[in-house]
Amino acid sequence: MSAQAGVPQLVVYNAGNNRFSALLEMDDAFFEDLWRLCCFGGFLLGREAAGRILPDGGGTLIFTGATASIRARPPFTAFASAKAALRALAHGMAREFGAQGLHVGHVIVDGGIDGDQLNSRFPQFKQRLGEDGMLNVDAIADAYWFLQAQHRSAWTLEFDLRPFKESF
Amino acid sequence: MSAQAGVPQLVVYNAGNNRFSALLEMDDAFFEDLWRLCCFGGFLLGREAAGRILPDGGGTLIFTGATASIRARPPFTAFASAKAALRALAHGMAREFGAQGLHVGHVIVDGGIDGDQLNSRFPQFKQRLGEDGMLNVDAIADAYWFLQAQHRSAWTLEFDLRPFKESF
Amino acid sequence: MSAQAGVPQLVVYNAGNNRFSALLEMDDAFFEDLWRLCCFGGFLLGREAAGRILPDGGGTLIFTGATASIRARPPFTAFASAKAALRALAHGMAREFGAQGLHVGHVIVDGGIDGDQLNSRFPQFKQRLGEDGMLNVDAIADAYWFLQAQHRSAWTLEFDLRPFKESF
Amino acid sequence: MSAQAGVPQLVVYNAGNNRFSALLEMDDAFFEDLWRLCCFGGFLLGREAAGRILPDGGGTLIFTGATASIRARPPFTAFASAKAALRALAHGMAREFGAQGLHVGHVIVDGGIDGDQLNSRFPQFKQRLGEDGMLNVDAIADAYWFLQAQHRSAWTLEFDLRPFKESF
Repeated sequence: MSAQAGVPQLVVYNAGNNRFSALLEMDDAFFEDLWRLCCFGGFLLGREAAGRILPDGGGTLIFTGATASIRARPPFTAFASAKAALRALAHGMAREFGAQGLHVGHVIVDGGIDGDQLNSRFPQFKQRLGEDGMLNVDAIADAYWFLQAQHRSAWTLEFDLRPFKESF
Repeated sequence: MSAQAGVPQLVVYNAGNNRFSALLEMDDAFFEDLWRLCCFGGFLLGREAAGRILPDGGGTLIFTGATASIRARPPFTAFASAKAALRALAHGMAREFGAQGLHVGHVIVDGGIDGDQLNSRFPQFKQRLGEDGMLNVDAIADAYWFLQAQHRSAWTLEFDLRPFKESF
Repeated sequence: MSAQAGVPQLVVYNAGNNRFSALLEMDDAFFEDLWRLCCFGGFLLGREAAGRILPDGGGTLIFTGATASIRARPPFTAFASAKAALRALAHGMAREFGAQGLHVGHVIVDGGIDGDQLNSRFPQFKQRLGEDGMLNVDAIADAYWFLQAQHRSAWTLEFDLRPFKESF
Repeated sequence: MSAQAGVPQLVVYNAGNNRFSALLEMDDAFFEDLWRLCCFGGFLLGREAAGRILPDGGGTLIFTGATASIRARPPFTAFASAKAALRALAHGMAREFGAQGLHVGHVIVDGGIDGDQLNSRFPQFKQRLGEDGMLNVDAIADAYWFLQAQHRSAWTLEFDLRPFKESF
């Protein structure tokens, strides 16, 4: 429980959609907007969260990553660039703030999430992947919660989450 | 619970000690023995565990890694070589057996473990690192258990464990 | 030799300075400006260069990276975020355009460059590092030229450049 | 030219064949033999080469890697384990001996080599890949020579070599 009213113990930055474009047809705004959404927003949130959590004695800050965070594949190059930028931000913050009690995590989600967004737009996707072929939302939440609950003598900075049958 | 008597649901390969030597003074046996301990034993265990777990419908196999698994620093070059070999084994097995229900995990332990081995040999180490500066054994166990308990739609292959104040 | 007048065979994006700041004191513009300089400019140049080089039958496009491209260390977190974003851009472009004859390279410069910029601002740096402790500018140029001259059956996407005595 | 008769300036460890097996059917000797060939031989050569080159004032030692050095894909898990072990050896030696004048390189060959071995066994491979779809042997040699000729203020530890049209 936070000692100070209104100070969160767990903050998650989960923004960012996987948009794609051939690089030659990518306009400036497309590249910049993905960075704003996937990385700059994470910086703003991270700075504000750290500024509140640190004086309060500690807490957890989690950034959601993707396969693209560590692998740039066209036509997702702009997305990958933004996600790699977010990942480096998370790693730098972990190094800067860990000893002061802020636990920074970066979760690499590698697969489709079994939620409204994907299921409403691509209903055939779920059927094609079969049972448990998409990441269950509660299972993702369990993993984020696990980060939050870790003893400070054994913190995790980064892990991947992937359906058992996903090829990688 | 395993359907078949005697078939484990969770297998952990945790062998391997961090020995060091200048490379020019390393004899053949030193290099080979570290590989046998840190990697070959993991292969033998992994193959036997997979052969039993797969027909049983699934389970979890965890290999313990170290900072050296991803970074070779003298005088720990032989250890790093063996640990990198183990890590590749874990990644290959994860890809080969995931879809059949075997969850393979690789845990990168980055720091000293607060157990008898280190505390009896280097008692001053714990004092120097301060409170929670070494990995608590129960906290490590929690993390391994977390892997074991993950829903198969959101498995983790690899994560790091590190005291909050460890420099990395 | 280029078939079309005015089409370059070799384009290098080398902008970007290593600025630093504690994250809590970093204002929005600091974070954004580093991304504009280190990554967005590379995107603009890369897109324009690719659009000219590809119809001409091929050429080489090199991005300069840094240690921070693969490792985010405070107080260089913003720089590392921007450099990681540039690296992902380079990798994505290499995958998108290689088969069409555009050779994309990403060079990780790990050390101080023995040029006016560093020597005029930190003259003691060179003395402290000793003979050949800073990267010779001609040696860097040789490495870039090597990329440019590679046979297309054996292209390099990424390499590091580091003084022989640099610790890493 | 070496100051001492019989001391080489450039040593290359290029042994190692890409053999494959399903993990459950892999016998102990298969896993061990690949390690002996791909990694242990490299250790023996590296130690002996370093012991001769270092007193002579310096030289170059290159290890040949493969895609599997950084990515373990079944049915090449044993090969990947051995190649990852060799890569860590190379990185450790580079860190241990660089400052004393031994330049260690690790070359990640990502693609088929256009030589007798592959062409005699899989003649259709070359035709399928098309012009310059396999790595030209002279181009590989150029790249190794480039490492050997680098100025010590700007050494490369690792690079990849890949046909321009190779997917990765």
